[in-house]
Amino acid sequence: MSLSQLLRDPETIRHWNGGEIAISSRIRLARNLAGHSFPDWAGETECAQVWERLRAVWPECPALKPYRMAAHDELTPLDRQVLVERHLASRELSRKGRGSGIVVREDLRVSVMVNEEDHLRIQILGLGLCLDDLWRKMEELDRQIEERVPMAYCGRLGYLTACPTNVGTGLRASVMLHLPGLALTNDLPGVLRAVAKLGLTARGFWGEGTEAVGHFYQISNQITLGETEHRLIASLESVVREVMEHERNARQRLLENRPALLYDHVGRAYGILSHAHLLTTHEAIALLSALRLGVVMGMVSSVDRAMLDAMLIAVQPAHIQMLSERALDAHERDEWRARLVREWLSPPRRRSPRKKKNG
Amino acid sequence: MSLSQLLRDPETIRHWNGGEIAISSRIRLARNLAGHSFPDWAGETECAQVWERLRAVWPECPALKPYRMAAHDELTPLDRQVLVERHLASRELSRKGRGSGIVVREDLRVSVMVNEEDHLRIQILGLGLCLDDLWRKMEELDRQIEERVPMAYCGRLGYLTACPTNVGTGLRASVMLHLPGLALTNDLPGVLRAVAKLGLTARGFWGEGTEAVGHFYQISNQITLGETEHRLIASLESVVREVMEHERNARQRLLENRPALLYDHVGRAYGILSHAHLLTTHEAIALLSALRLGVVMGMVSSVDRAMLDAMLIAVQPAHIQMLSERALDAHERDEWRARLVREWLSPPRRRSPRKKKNG
Repeated sequence: MSLSQLLRDPETIRHWNGGEIAISSRIRLARNLAGHSFPDWAGETECAQVWERLRAVWPECPALKPYRMAAHDELTPLDRQVLVERHLASRELSRKGRGSGIVVREDLRVSVMVNEEDHLRIQILGLGLCLDDLWRKMEELDRQIEERVPMAYCGRLGYLTACPTNVGTGLRASVMLHLPGLALTNDLPGVLRAVAKLGLTARGFWGEGTEAVGHFYQISNQITLGETEHRLIASLESVVREVMEHERNARQRLLENRPALLYDHVGRAYGILSHAHLLTTHEAIALLSALRLGVVMGMVSSVDRAMLDAMLIAVQPAHIQMLSERALDAHERDEWRARLVREWLSPPRRRSPRKKKNG
Repeated sequence: MSLSQLLRDPETIRHWNGGEIAISSRIRLARNLAGHSFPDWAGETECAQVWERLRAVWPECPALKPYRMAAHDELTPLDRQVLVERHLASRELSRKGRGSGIVVREDLRVSVMVNEEDHLRIQILGLGLCLDDLWRKMEELDRQIEERVPMAYCGRLGYLTACPTNVGTGLRASVMLHLPGLALTNDLPGVLRAVAKLGLTARGFWGEGTEAVGHFYQISNQITLGETEHRLIASLESVVREVMEHERNARQRLLENRPALLYDHVGRAYGILSHAHLLTTHEAIALLSALRLGVVMGMVSSVDRAMLDAMLIAVQPAHIQMLSERALDAHERDEWRARLVREWLSPPRRRSPRKKKNG
């Protein structure tokens, strides 16, 4: 099974069941091979050499097994977009040429981008708030790779990276938080300002430079230099825990003081999702976010969180295209997305693999 | 049973089941007693004399029987608003003082406002497009009244009225049309301009000076002078029939060319109405309008038109207040309205007279 086929397996979507407030955690390391120019300075030939050299390393890393690998030209544009939507690759990787590619562990929890901005971007994902666990796994994988290829490292600075913002540890740890309660109480801007003041960054649903659709925020460290990985991760985790506490309080306050507002927010989302015939990606995510709040708070019993989290992946444009198994224009995608959501939300007795169009 | 009690009888709401496009028709005549000043020029004493004189007339009019009568001070502000929401009285009547009042036939299809702008505003309502039938009934009632009190009439002009725009026949005929198809195809402004050019007026849901919420439009004659009643009514009816044809075509075009848009419009309305926990009057009417389109077009089988038309009456502010049987502030009304709508739309097996709050 190729990586492309693996991504098309619906089971891989079903297994993405996040935590109540902390959906998922992620750690990535930026690494570069000693003796090679950074990808943007290296030509195609040198990038291809790096790719080949690393290709020999993967079978030697137990922490990666079993894995699927795909060089740049083995992925269709749709595959690449699907990888971005699963948070396994960056948009930047798609824009790179020959010599770039990706290695993905079969459970889709570990990926290594090759010749993106750095020679290696090693990433481990986990559900809920699990930074310590991820870091232990990352140390293991990083060690297994470094034992086989020497990395560009400077005693004074640490690991060298293409962009100075990653120099030192090369570490970015992030937690995806779901903050609809703080949004409803209008406390979100204040909390995000406080997060920024503590030297952390809050990014949108799809990472750097994207909107916070559905009140999903990725909180991550900005500093990579002058601190140990443990300290960076511990400080991120402590802020994340505080934000989670604020979110929990906001939800409780809503339930006590403005129940109608809360039930209305959740009820409308459920009503629209289960009856709309056209849904854009953004609207679908925003409504699934509201419904997720209701499900987590025990207000909606007919939907489970695992299904919602799978839907949050499946409604994205490349996934819709992939699941429909044919090329769709934007209007058709909106129609297909609405049908998919209606079917997933319809009671089991009425669920069928494909309803009659407009039936 | 007083008029006030009659209005509180839920059965009177249930019987308001309009036509598919032409919801209802209405004819009213403005009349003034000979030998009396118009209400705004008469003092309270003279108004009271007119009221008393007419009071003796009602029992003599078979076309009014059985009727309920209420003088100004026998109606609460809520009763007056309910009368407005049922299209039985005008907002202006509420502002009048002693000597004003209303007579309403028990089936709520006939009303006579006394000492509003004119001494008499006689009105007959009917379901669907039924102007000819209403005019026959109106001639009968008008004759029965005029046989007992002489009206201010001038051989050259016709009936004299407080406002010159009503002089002549004193007739206003109107048809309430439901035009969501033309709204969705963006053809509504053009159609309304054409209606205006033909000397007719299109007013909103609650009559003169109100918005066209839910794409409900009352189309009525503007001219009252220099034409016979028959000609005025025939010319209104012919334009109304043309507008109805345009609406029918718009619906057909939507179904053929943009089914997803149509199903989305209707589905969302149903989804929100059956799941919202806060609904303003305007939003409720707009959504009920969309749902009505779907029901009339056979797209929604679980809801019937009679129930929707009853809901269109029941969701209005005074009705909500009346049905809840206690004083509510605006937020509570929105909550109560949403609960009422959810209960009406919930499948019979789950319907209960009153659900647990936020349950």
